[in-house]
Amino acid sequence: MLVDTALGEDIGHGDVTRFAVPDDSRSYYEIEAQADGVVCGIGIALDLLTPLGDAEEDEFIEYKVVDGDTVLAGSIVLAGRLQTRELLRNERTALNFLMHLSGVASLTAQYVAKTEGTKAKILDTRKTLPGLRALQKYAVRCGGGVNHRMGLFDGILIKDNHVKAAGGAAQAVKALKGQAPHTMRVEIECTTVAQVDRAIGAGVDIILLDNMSMGEMKDAVGIGRTKVLFEASGGVSLDTVSDIAKTGVDFISVGSLTHSAASLPFHLEFR
Amino acid sequence: MLVDTALGEDIGHGDVTRFAVPDDSRSYYEIEAQADGVVCGIGIALDLLTPLGDAEEDEFIEYKVVDGDTVLAGSIVLAGRLQTRELLRNERTALNFLMHLSGVASLTAQYVAKTEGTKAKILDTRKTLPGLRALQKYAVRCGGGVNHRMGLFDGILIKDNHVKAAGGAAQAVKALKGQAPHTMRVEIECTTVAQVDRAIGAGVDIILLDNMSMGEMKDAVGIGRTKVLFEASGGVSLDTVSDIAKTGVDFISVGSLTHSAASLPFHLEFR
Amino acid sequence: MLVDTALGEDIGHGDVTRFAVPDDSRSYYEIEAQADGVVCGIGIALDLLTPLGDAEEDEFIEYKVVDGDTVLAGSIVLAGRLQTRELLRNERTALNFLMHLSGVASLTAQYVAKTEGTKAKILDTRKTLPGLRALQKYAVRCGGGVNHRMGLFDGILIKDNHVKAAGGAAQAVKALKGQAPHTMRVEIECTTVAQVDRAIGAGVDIILLDNMSMGEMKDAVGIGRTKVLFEASGGVSLDTVSDIAKTGVDFISVGSLTHSAASLPFHLEFR
Amino acid sequence: MLVDTALGEDIGHGDVTRFAVPDDSRSYYEIEAQADGVVCGIGIALDLLTPLGDAEEDEFIEYKVVDGDTVLAGSIVLAGRLQTRELLRNERTALNFLMHLSGVASLTAQYVAKTEGTKAKILDTRKTLPGLRALQKYAVRCGGGVNHRMGLFDGILIKDNHVKAAGGAAQAVKALKGQAPHTMRVEIECTTVAQVDRAIGAGVDIILLDNMSMGEMKDAVGIGRTKVLFEASGGVSLDTVSDIAKTGVDFISVGSLTHSAASLPFHLEFR
Amino acid sequence: MLVDTALGEDIGHGDVTRFAVPDDSRSYYEIEAQADGVVCGIGIALDLLTPLGDAEEDEFIEYKVVDGDTVLAGSIVLAGRLQTRELLRNERTALNFLMHLSGVASLTAQYVAKTEGTKAKILDTRKTLPGLRALQKYAVRCGGGVNHRMGLFDGILIKDNHVKAAGGAAQAVKALKGQAPHTMRVEIECTTVAQVDRAIGAGVDIILLDNMSMGEMKDAVGIGRTKVLFEASGGVSLDTVSDIAKTGVDFISVGSLTHSAASLPFHLEFR
Amino acid sequence: MLVDTALGEDIGHGDVTRFAVPDDSRSYYEIEAQADGVVCGIGIALDLLTPLGDAEEDEFIEYKVVDGDTVLAGSIVLAGRLQTRELLRNERTALNFLMHLSGVASLTAQYVAKTEGTKAKILDTRKTLPGLRALQKYAVRCGGGVNHRMGLFDGILIKDNHVKAAGGAAQAVKALKGQAPHTMRVEIECTTVAQVDRAIGAGVDIILLDNMSMGEMKDAVGIGRTKVLFEASGGVSLDTVSDIAKTGVDFISVGSLTHSAASLPFHLEFR
Repeated sequence: MLVDTALGEDIGHGDVTRFAVPDDSRSYYEIEAQADGVVCGIGIALDLLTPLGDAEEDEFIEYKVVDGDTVLAGSIVLAGRLQTRELLRNERTALNFLMHLSGVASLTAQYVAKTEGTKAKILDTRKTLPGLRALQKYAVRCGGGVNHRMGLFDGILIKDNHVKAAGGAAQAVKALKGQAPHTMRVEIECTTVAQVDRAIGAGVDIILLDNMSMGEMKDAVGIGRTKVLFEASGGVSLDTVSDIAKTGVDFISVGSLTHSAASLPFHLEFR
Repeated sequence: MLVDTALGEDIGHGDVTRFAVPDDSRSYYEIEAQADGVVCGIGIALDLLTPLGDAEEDEFIEYKVVDGDTVLAGSIVLAGRLQTRELLRNERTALNFLMHLSGVASLTAQYVAKTEGTKAKILDTRKTLPGLRALQKYAVRCGGGVNHRMGLFDGILIKDNHVKAAGGAAQAVKALKGQAPHTMRVEIECTTVAQVDRAIGAGVDIILLDNMSMGEMKDAVGIGRTKVLFEASGGVSLDTVSDIAKTGVDFISVGSLTHSAASLPFHLEFR
Repeated sequence: MLVDTALGEDIGHGDVTRFAVPDDSRSYYEIEAQADGVVCGIGIALDLLTPLGDAEEDEFIEYKVVDGDTVLAGSIVLAGRLQTRELLRNERTALNFLMHLSGVASLTAQYVAKTEGTKAKILDTRKTLPGLRALQKYAVRCGGGVNHRMGLFDGILIKDNHVKAAGGAAQAVKALKGQAPHTMRVEIECTTVAQVDRAIGAGVDIILLDNMSMGEMKDAVGIGRTKVLFEASGGVSLDTVSDIAKTGVDFISVGSLTHSAASLPFHLEFR
Repeated sequence: MLVDTALGEDIGHGDVTRFAVPDDSRSYYEIEAQADGVVCGIGIALDLLTPLGDAEEDEFIEYKVVDGDTVLAGSIVLAGRLQTRELLRNERTALNFLMHLSGVASLTAQYVAKTEGTKAKILDTRKTLPGLRALQKYAVRCGGGVNHRMGLFDGILIKDNHVKAAGGAAQAVKALKGQAPHTMRVEIECTTVAQVDRAIGAGVDIILLDNMSMGEMKDAVGIGRTKVLFEASGGVSLDTVSDIAKTGVDFISVGSLTHSAASLPFHLEFR
Repeated sequence: MLVDTALGEDIGHGDVTRFAVPDDSRSYYEIEAQADGVVCGIGIALDLLTPLGDAEEDEFIEYKVVDGDTVLAGSIVLAGRLQTRELLRNERTALNFLMHLSGVASLTAQYVAKTEGTKAKILDTRKTLPGLRALQKYAVRCGGGVNHRMGLFDGILIKDNHVKAAGGAAQAVKALKGQAPHTMRVEIECTTVAQVDRAIGAGVDIILLDNMSMGEMKDAVGIGRTKVLFEASGGVSLDTVSDIAKTGVDFISVGSLTHSAASLPFHLEFR
Repeated sequence: MLVDTALGEDIGHGDVTRFAVPDDSRSYYEIEAQADGVVCGIGIALDLLTPLGDAEEDEFIEYKVVDGDTVLAGSIVLAGRLQTRELLRNERTALNFLMHLSGVASLTAQYVAKTEGTKAKILDTRKTLPGLRALQKYAVRCGGGVNHRMGLFDGILIKDNHVKAAGGAAQAVKALKGQAPHTMRVEIECTTVAQVDRAIGAGVDIILLDNMSMGEMKDAVGIGRTKVLFEASGGVSLDTVSDIAKTGVDFISVGSLTHSAASLPFHLEFR
């Protein structure tokens, strides 16, 4: 669906430059990574560049890596032979998916690497780019991360604004436990250790530690470790994530994985 | 359409945390920029947060800036009062658009600032994120940039792969001039000054100087200034764009505007 | 969306019998319940029968009850005056929604009444009619029931077929706890008390007691009451639900609410 | 289309319980009828459970009956071997179609059986469930019934409300004969024998006898048998349908076939 | 829907010539008929050119005629004042509808005029332009014609190819009378008077006289006038239609109304 | 997409006359041109009449011509053998496309023939039938014509109304050159030679000569031949096009190609 939308954005009613190339021209090409990283989007590129059913016999496509593989700059990730006009029509769309999703996967992998040896898992957030949520969350998994809830509908998270509107955390938790789906755990955002203590008393299942200091996070984990799960959030960067992981939290959520990942560059070259 | 898609990704069949907040609660909120930059996406945020037709009388929405305005960290860009459940349902989607589009506009504005005093205009490319092309190109305009073609259908650009497949630049240009729409100019990518010279002889209208050195670009502009338009591309960064502009090119196209812009952070807070 | 689909099914390119009635005819009508029950679907009927913006001044619509209200046979639930051709075009679709959804709500209310005085709540299942899930689950709520998960995506339930394929309940639970969303509780289906005991040991949060005898259910609740939630399922009828509720289970799920509810009859009469 | 909608309702962005089962697990299953009845929906179940193009070699699907076949409780209607995760993802949707459509077909077959030996055919009505009209009408045919008009657009039926608004049956018939499509017959609803007499005089082609007594129906048929077709409607049940058929009417329409059919139970079991 | 499609075809991602006109320019315009004819499409033009909700106060739209009115060349049919860019964006689409639909209505009116004083009504056919059937049939009504069936689904017509495949007209009629909807009349195509005679014997309701001579048509009408309706078809032109009408047929169907109507020219001029 | 829409218009929920023909009947058919012309739409007819994957072995389809071929009345363009019910269901839709598109191609070919020996190419316009633009423009190419811009989005054309609203041609051109895409040429409509002279001075690339006399067109071409391209428009007919071509213009645009082409008749006959 999104692939069709993206193709449509680029092709519209047809490629006006196609006439530069003979109708029967076929070209051998390679897609090359131009930086080190983790690949994501090979399946979409395959979809877009696979020869059609009535293709000539010498057309083919071959992938050299699969989603989640680590590559070095200069690696060929995909190669093939295709009708040139078809190739030039779909190339940009394929590269746009590959570059963005590999960018997300690669950034995730950097965060995951920094937390090695701890139990902390790297989570994504709902801060995704419009229309790309499912694919970005897939890219996070390819990078070694774990998905948080998909949206408002499949997970409970009481945030500071909920608490304000409910007139207190206890009220918010109580209201939810009576009405929300019994199949879901209850997560609440806390900004102080005292709040954490009260939240545990109110019977929540997961606590999000928002913008706490390392010391506060350690204290929070200390009092709740056996009763709830802990998620750290806010102020997470490649510089701080390792220390946050060492506080003993179960999860660290990182918004920039999906809202600010630079693309991983790829290039399609005719040989 | 994309707004509906993005809302759907987030809300699905409904917000399960809504029960934390009384049904009749209303909240006053402000959206605050958390970094300096150029705003884009206010119209979409308005769409998502405007009180519905049957809203209570004390609900409202007020925007403090319009798309294209420069803001400082700490500025309020939008404020209002809304049913709390409605607010919490649409907040994230509104912020996701605002943060991404403002990120694109702000990065564009940085490039534009670096070229002040030259005639060079900053162009976007087809390296956009899937599904977001029209909005990203709008954000580029808000940041002071100019749009290149929307896609393959509304502009002619003969690239290196076309030339390879056509058996030479001259063949590619000739084929196109006979068959492509007479309403469009012909642009070709060149990597050497000699190619530029031959392209002008073949009657093209615009030349894309791809990955050339400053010296080569100056030479190219020197021989073609009165006959064609020049666009520089490749290796453009905030460090190099100013020097590139001084070579006399008419346009500088920058892929990272749309494929690698970090988001501009915004926060919605209940007061 | 579904309302448009349903209208389209009925109207197609237009009502060929409309010519029987003068173009400028207007009629006063009443919709009357023809049996006792709980109403659901008034909002959809309003949507379909509200006079359009450019209607004549003597047109109106007035609802006498809201969704969830109990009515007796002979009660008027909605009345109005409308262009006759418009009325005859939308009448059947409005009644089809009203009759089916009120049927679901009324059947739910009968189950809820039978469990009064116990803590057991009546749940729906995924055995819904194609395309009608969200509306049927809304009707269950109108009848006093509580919704189980919306679908496969927002709740975990390990059933007998999962256990068979996983090679045992313990394996299934273990695999899920490592990979499923941390925001969701884990529910498992058990058919014997011994299975219940082992499931509690494996750390599940909810146990579905499938087709157990009253005695077995009491035993299961006895050993797990303080550690997990219990849902009873299978063989539930209006005759048995009261006894099942008295075993101490937290929830009783009833597939027939949504797959076999007879419609509650309504009639639209011109006066 | 509806199959996709129904799948989407159930699966959303993915089955979160799938992790309970190994990715490479395959299962042999059988779908078993749990009550006697007429099957409808096998084709949809096949669509949903057929192994995909790139399936492993030991996967298969085999149907034991076709739509319209009568089965006994305990009969296997479909069996196969499939990737377990795929099977668990599509199972519920397949069963939901099969159970509802077989319910409609089975109820129809009961009515048809009661009219054996008469010329009366069992008709459905426009009292269908939203979004399901075409499928329900197909199920009626599988059960041995005959379809009435699909909707307002492909058949003429002047009902009591039309007559009231037109100022009389004669006026309604006259207006229609001048303006309605010449390719359609004109049917009118009558509640007394006197009305039937006048309707025949006005030149109608079909008469719907609404809520008449057996005696009245016989009288009506007596005076119109050679001139028009007769359809009986209202108060039709499995207890009364046989007597109604014996009055000599050509058709008996039964709303409950589509608005109140209980599902025919089926079960999918891994072996 | 079709209006949106047509607008989308023309506007795509935006009008690139709009910059020729100041953003705040407003223009007074008139749409003028450039030939005599019957107007159809005023409603669509209104839809496309009505000022938006937030329009300036001096914007307006005024229609001078309604669909079905006859106009002379030079007549103004619509006038208004609108934002110039908006006007230029929607103008062509509005005129394209108006010109085509008025062309169909005008051609229909010419045929209708030629049959004045006879009982013959002018019918359209299924020979419509793809996607335009409903609108073209509306235009036929505006021109004074009458619609034949909308498509294959709402009317029965046994054509020569049916007869060949069925092994004879009698077989085709018999099969249909047992299985087709009882609400529809049965029409059959005949090419000889002998066929007409046999068709009446077989119990059909309507006979299509295909490509018969005037004499044959008169004979056919002579033998069937009191028993069936007659439709003439084939070889109908403005030269022959009057004589055909005088044979006594009830309907004359004309394919060129919808497959070959020249547009009625209109012009939008700024004053 | 449009093919599906057109099929849907015709078939709706099913062909009610299909029962006239045995379910297992297969027929051999031929599609025959009934007039001389240029064929367009063979690909769509193939799509609609090709036997399905599970067709019987004796079914086939064979095309005798391809789009753009010239045929004489009586030529067979397509023949095949197909399930009769399938054939009768899709026949009309296939013929409707074939007749209209071949009508457009044939009319175009007549214009092209009249300009043989000149450099003038025949262009289409934006005066297309709603929903049919892409297909009609394809038909124009099949007839030997050349496409003008697809819509407002991919070509610049300053018309008389733009000039009025801009306050003069010079203002309009200037505004556009600063803001419109640099990849597009600028075309302007002129009605006098003096306007042509000024437009060339303003730096436009293409001039549309609107409703000029032969003499004026020659004069215009005389002064601009080496600097701009010329397009003639207005008052073009099969009688005048040859003389217009001889004035030396590069293009002649003809609205009637797409808004007033009569269909080329085809017939499908069972043999």
